Order: sequence, then structure tokens, then C-alpha cells
Amino acid sequence: MEDILPQQSTSWQNMISTARCVFNSFGYHEIILPVAERTEVFTRTLGDSSDIVNKEMYTFEDKKGRSLTLRPEGTASVVRAVIEHGLLSSGNTVKVFYIGPMFRYERPQKGRKRQFYQMGVEFFGARSYYSDCDAVLCMSEICKKLDIPIVIKINTLGCKSCLVKYTEFIKKSLTNKQDDLCKDCATRIKSNILRVFDCKNKNCKNILKDITPIYEMVCDKDKQQFTSFKDVLNKFDVTFVEDRTLVRGLDYYSGIIYEAYIKDYNSDAVSGGGRYNDLVSIMGGPQTPSVGFAIGIDRLIEYKNDSSKKEIDVFLVSLGPSALHKNFELLITLRNLGFSAEMEYEEKSPKSQFRKANSFNAKYVVVRGEDEIKKDIIKIKDMATGHEKEIKENQLKTVLSNKT
Amino acid sequence: MEDILPQQSTSWQNMISTARCVFNSFGYHEIILPVAERTEVFTRTLGDSSDIVNKEMYTFEDKKGRSLTLRPEGTASVVRAVIEHGLLSSGNTVKVFYIGPMFRYERPQKGRKRQFYQMGVEFFGARSYYSDCDAVLCMSEICKKLDIPIVIKINTLGCKSCLVKYTEFIKKSLTNKQDDLCKDCATRIKSNILRVFDCKNKNCKNILKDITPIYEMVCDKDKQQFTSFKDVLNKFDVTFVEDRTLVRGLDYYSGIIYEAYIKDYNSDAVSGGGRYNDLVSIMGGPQTPSVGFAIGIDRLIEYKNDSSKKEIDVFLVSLGPSALHKNFELLITLRNLGFSAEMEYEEKSPKSQFRKANSFNAKYVVVRGEDEIKKDIIKIKDMATGHEKEIKENQLKTVLSNKT
Repeated sequence: MEDILPQQSTSWQNMISTARCVFNSFGYHEIILPVAERTEVFTRTLGDSSDIVNKEMYTFEDKKGRSLTLRPEGTASVVRAVIEHGLLSSGNTVKVFYIGPMFRYERPQKGRKRQFYQMGVEFFGARSYYSDCDAVLCMSEICKKLDIPIVIKINTLGCKSCLVKYTEFIKKSLTNKQDDLCKDCATRIKSNILRVFDCKNKNCKNILKDITPIYEMVCDKDKQQFTSFKDVLNKFDVTFVEDRTLVRGLDYYSGIIYEAYIKDYNSDAVSGGGRYNDLVSIMGGPQTPSVGFAIGIDRLIEYKNDSSKKEIDVFLVSLGPSALHKNFELLITLRNLGFSAEMEYEEKSPKSQFRKANSFNAKYVVVRGEDEIKKDIIKIKDMATGHEKEIKENQLKTVLSNKT
Repeated sequence: MEDILPQQSTSWQNMISTARCVFNSFGYHEIILPVAERTEVFTRTLGDSSDIVNKEMYTFEDKKGRSLTLRPEGTASVVRAVIEHGLLSSGNTVKVFYIGPMFRYERPQKGRKRQFYQMGVEFFGARSYYSDCDAVLCMSEICKKLDIPIVIKINTLGCKSCLVKYTEFIKKSLTNKQDDLCKDCATRIKSNILRVFDCKNKNCKNILKDITPIYEMVCDKDKQQFTSFKDVLNKFDVTFVEDRTLVRGLDYYSGIIYEAYIKDYNSDAVSGGGRYNDLVSIMGGPQTPSVGFAIGIDRLIEYKNDSSKKEIDVFLVSLGPSALHKNFELLITLRNLGFSAEMEYEEKSPKSQFRKANSFNAKYVVVRGEDEIKKDIIKIKDMATGHEKEIKENQLKTVLSNKT
């Protein structure tokens, strides 16, 4: 698990607040949930056979012996919460977003940390393809505002009956090829067979490329929805490609699904999502068609690798104890006026104090010693030009305002 | 562990962003840390005998058998991080703040949750009393900006040698009263004796009120620092009271300490902090005088119980499929212009759509049906006045801008 130090935290917070604005403008409201949930919240939603549930969860018992798990993703907790708080009374649409840490026990590598940050939305009571569009356009707008060029892979898994039919079909197609598949895929045939399409094994890929992909077999109505969905993406200049073998790693998806990748950047998906019409009822809530997506914040940060420089408006240099005292009062006054101000809090040499001012990237340095106090002035140095002048303390606000 | 639903999350986020501005203006930079740490990070810093370590930690093993704990407070993790990343090279001052969830296994009650949120600062390399002032004034400014009236209890525990002397003194004073103290205090005598002053037991309180409090026994230099500290608080109109029996619940404090309470509001402290000159070296870093405080966010929220009303700029009502399609495009266009806009994504009756517009507290409702499409206009209704008129779609931006 990694620390995010002050140098990086600024770009992290900028990203979050940009996303928060877009979420709000798309009508999503924030929900803040516990990082730990009862374990069954995840085993019931993600599927017993998923890698997450089997290998990657941080699970432990609380002092009463209840099994808790640090959330590996956001959707399951959100669904648990909206059901528990009765937000899904019939016909209601509920649009929420979340931002926060998630936890998976994986081998740490570039872009994959054990504590990582995701933000995402869930749109409950979302029947028409407009709601799929609403979600994708929101995700796309966030990346646009963040100046991150993405391409979105899209596909449709069709409705539940399409999915059932296709599962039968592919089971049959793979029956006599079982021995050629890798060990993981052999297991997948019994649990969630669609995931064989996620396999990176060359042999498996070879076998699968000859099998009719799910898209070809979905019903006309689902194809029509998918076409309308694409029309809207085109209308709003969203860059996408159709990927007819795209499935998603979790059990709960059906209908339109998608994954976003950063253009010309070699990395995993930065975002993924889709429709999940049955998850709410599986979790004990009313039948509620829903869509949602999540964005991996760490990966976006990594891409941006923000080089924004910290700087402050003014640094106060004090020569002698009276100056230290007067400067401290000035410091607080400046901050209350909205300027970023710093000083050396101990009696130190001018040289050491100027060094510190530089390390803060101060735009101005104020110097005050016995002389200045006697003359009731302060010295101010513009650090960009090197220009120095004497002013009255009450002129400082004007000087700083002109620059900032 | 509680969910924070959309209705509350707005006031929560407003609070956070106000605090973030004040932290930044006081020169503190954000650090974002894992919610779980190796268990020894907390046992070494909080003291083996503290209630937190003994009864309240969520501790569990990861898949490699290492003991991890969900952080019960922020300071220990921050100290671990600044040492690990080598930020404390000699003479450096480091000022950081954190905001995030903390975890304690307590009986849930008003203002005490098992997952709760804290924000706080740590100022490393802070020798003079100005740094104590810097922290307290920052805390006070946050409450002022949030319009939360507080009173701050202050005290000084003196330097390390004062503390050692006083510990000896009180041990002696309590020797023959041991049997009259409660069971917890009897244990405290052996572990951290100062905590007897935190005891709520009547008997214990009675015994302790006759014992010279620590403040009376600190050395002149520490008293002088404390006086200078109070002078600054007075100067900046911070409301405080001296509480000569104030100690803090954690082992690591020395010097000036404080706790903030909301005025005329019956609750526990909303903030607390103080000086901890030895903690960094105990954790294996260089000797680094430091100060810090934490604020409990849940308690502030509870006090504010914010009644801010959600509302949106415009809701789009569609009569028929073509209108639905045109309105969806208008919806996205409006959002991209910065307006908050919503619509019904399914074909529904006008009545049901207006009901929804009301539930969103829409300032305006746009209505579009076959008639409007034919005439190439839209109808717009001002929901405050009930006034309705027909306009061209491209006039909508101007109408909305005049109101918002």
C-alpha cells in the first residue's frame, strides 16, 4: 500500500474535484461508504468464481467473529447501501457517485497497488439506452476535462435470455476442446464461461478466435439498442471501437458494456462499466435495471504525472526576536486575507531563511529587522525580478494582490 | 459503520473543502495514506496501555501472516510515512495535513461511529511556541470559517523532565490511595499514570481534585512559553480556558496540549492536539520536535446538521419518442455549458414527469412534444412564478443564465 505525498496529492485533489464537478453536472450525487463490509456483500455480487473473491480480498473477523472484507470495488457496497436505506422504491431513479480507496491483494506493479483509488457512478432505475449513454458520456467528459485522450471499447452481451443462449452455445463449442485450454479456462467453463474471452493464454486465444462472438448472437432488439447507443456516442464525438469479444471480469453484467483505454499509452483499462439489470434483486432489493462505471484514479495520475510546482505568495524573514514576533502576526493576517504565507519560526541566519524561502518557491520575501522596525517599514523583494523596495506594512496587501 | 448518503454528503464535502483551503493557507500540504498499517505502527506510538490499542483496534493478518490494523488515528501513520520517505533531513520543517476515515471498535453512539472521519495536521521540526500557535490558530480558523463556535481548553504538560518529575510525584501521592481508585485507574498507575485525570469515576475525581495538577509543577521556562502562547491566542481573539488537569488520552504528548469543544453544545471534544517532541525518534526517525491536532468531522457535521436543499437548474419533459431524443441531446449540451440538468429517460406521462421535476427542485422545466417540434420551439416554465412561455431552443441558455 502506497503513500501519496504532498507533491502528488495536489494533482490527485485537482483530479477529484474536476470529476466531482462533472458528476454533479450529470446529476449524480455523492455517497460515502465504509471501506469494510460484511464479506457476503462481495461474494454474492462478484461471483464465487471471480479472481477477486478467490484470491484478492482482504478478509478478517471483527471482535464478534463476523467476517468483514475491505472493499475490492465500489458497486457492491453501493447496491447494499441503496437497498438498506430503501432508496429504490418503485420507479425511483437514483444516481450516485463514490470516490475512495479499494483494496486487492495483488502483486504490486505499475498501475496496480494493493490500496488503490476508484471513482464511479451507479444509475439505478435505468431502463432505456439513454441511461447507458448518460453514464458513458459522463465518463468521457471527465477524461476530456482532465485532458486525457481515451478510446472506448464497446460491446453488448444482450439481455438475460441472449446470455443464457450464448452460454449454452459456447459450452457446446468448447466441449471437445477442453483439454487444449489452460487450467484457468478449464475451471471457467464450469463457473463463468464468458471469462474465457479474458484469457491471455496464446492457445486459448487461438481456440476462441474461431468461435462466434456473443455480439453476433444477441437478439434484434438488443442490436437495435446498441446501434442507437453508438449513434449518440457519434453525435457527441466520443471515440470508440467495437470489440465483439469484450466481456467484463465480473459476473453481474448484461447488456451494453465498455472499457476505456488511454490513447497510445500501454496500460490496462482506466475505466470500465456497463449494464447490470439483475444485481439489485440478487442482493435482495426490487428488480431494478441499472448501469454504472468505475474509473481507476491511480492510473490517470500515473499518466498525468503532474509536474505542477508548489509555490507560495510570500515568505517572511525575521532578524531578531521582535521581528519574529511582528512577522508572526503579519503571517496570520496575510493568511486570513487569503494569501499563502510562510516564515521561519525560529531565530535563524538570513542566509538560512532565504534558502527556505527558495525551497517554498516564494514569489515575494519580506525582510524585517531592528532597523526596519525603528523606521516602521518592511523590505519586500520580488523573487522573480530580484527587485527590492521599502514599503509600509499596510501597503503589502496591494503589492501582493498585483502579482497574484 | 455508517453510510453517508447523498443528502448528507454535500455538507460533508463543503466542510472538507473549506478545511482544505485553510490548511493550504496555513502552509500545510496534503498527504494521503493507506487506511491499513502494520500493527506495530500503532502499538509503538499510542502506548501499549491505551484503550485504543487494548480494546478498539481492527487488527487482522494478511495472506502472508503479517499483522495489519485499520488506522485508529492519523498521527502514527503520518510519522511512519515522513520517516520512511526521508522527509525529515536535519533542520527541515515539514507541514502536512490528512483527511480520511479512521476505525475504532467502540459501542456505536451519538457522535461515535466505528468508521469515523478525521482531518488533522502535523508540523515537524517545530521548536518554538509559534508553531504551537500556528497549529491552534489553523484549527480555530477552520471552525470560524465553518461557523462553528468553539472554546479551547489549554494546558501544558511541560518538557520531558517536568513530566518525569510529575510522574514520580503523583505516583507517591497516590500510593496509599490505590485501593480507593477504580480498577482502571489502579492499572493506569502502572502504565500511564497521567491518564487517571481522564477518569470519569466520582471516587477517583474526588481523590484527584486534592492533588497538585501538573501545571503547578512545570518549570519556569515552560510556564513562560505557555504565557507567550496565551498572549498570541488573545491577540487573535481565540476563545480559550485554562484547564490545569487537562491531559490527553495518548502517550506521546508533552508541552502545550489542547482540546476544542463546541460552545453550549453537550458533546465530547471535536478537536485535540498538542506537542510531541519524542514520537518521531521513538519511531526510528531523527529527534524532531513536532506539534499536531486532529478534528472529528462526524461531530462537526452532526452539529451543523446542514439543511441545504438540493436543486437543479432545469428538468426536461418529453412527450413522445422524438422529443425524448431531442431532449437528451439538449440535456448533454446544457451540462456541457455548466448547467445542472435532468430529464426522464423513459416515455412517461407529463404528470409523472412534472412530479419528478418537483422532486429535483428544478428551477425551470422545459416541455417538448410533437407540436413544439413542428413549430421548432420549446416551452419553458419558471417553477417559482409558474410563468410559462415559448422560446427558441437557442434562447434557453440566456433564460437560464439570467436566473442562475
